[in-house]
Amino acid sequence: MYDKNNVFAKIVRNEIPRNAIVENEYALSFMDINPLFEKHALIIPKGEYENILDFVSNASSAEQAGFWACFKETADRLGISQNFNVLANAGADAPFIKQSVFHFHLHLVSGPKKPELQKVLEAI
Amino acid sequence: MYDKNNVFAKIVRNEIPRNAIVENEYALSFMDINPLFEKHALIIPKGEYENILDFVSNASSAEQAGFWACFKETADRLGISQNFNVLANAGADAPFIKQSVFHFHLHLVSGPKKPELQKVLEAI
Repeated sequence: MYDKNNVFAKIVRNEIPRNAIVENEYALSFMDINPLFEKHALIIPKGEYENILDFVSNASSAEQAGFWACFKETADRLGISQNFNVLANAGADAPFIKQSVFHFHLHLVSGPKKPELQKVLEAI
Repeated sequence: MYDKNNVFAKIVRNEIPRNAIVENEYALSFMDINPLFEKHALIIPKGEYENILDFVSNASSAEQAGFWACFKETADRLGISQNFNVLANAGADAPFIKQSVFHFHLHLVSGPKKPELQKVLEAI
């Protein structure tokens, strides 16, 4: 069940500054405040979806198109066209990297890794 | 530039057995032959797209809807509804995990990790 008090919901409601890289009617992107790579952006839908499966199952076609347009434009703005990874974590017990904010967010990472990545890898 | 000789292109063309989990007009899914987690599926579009950015930028709305429907149905078939990760790697020098087959494929993983994961993590 979606929790409206999560930090990304607050960003969507303008209760926390967004510093958006890209924003459209249905989605926005911003830099991760704890980057694991030199370029580390998050793309989120404005709608209330807990994870990627919830999003692709329940978001409208317009919301989905807006989300992927935001993803594409974010990559463009950051100069990312090759050598990148996209990751979406779902669940507090996800097997790879755990989800910590329960509003769907897609990680887009590129460039050299940061020292903070090591701790994340050790926790897997 | 898309290379038509990649292994997933051959699967799409039925030159290699597909053993599909789910298949529709635009996409199909199958288990990764080198699983890193107990459940490790790959979802691929039938169209020729090198990575996720190429796919969301250039695939038609129908192709994109078909792809995400295949993703959703694959999760359903594998009994995955929470505690999973979704990963897409792009480029031979992707900073996190490198892309090895240059046809867009989305990794869907869930369940306990396998010993083979350790080598992948050490290579990051």
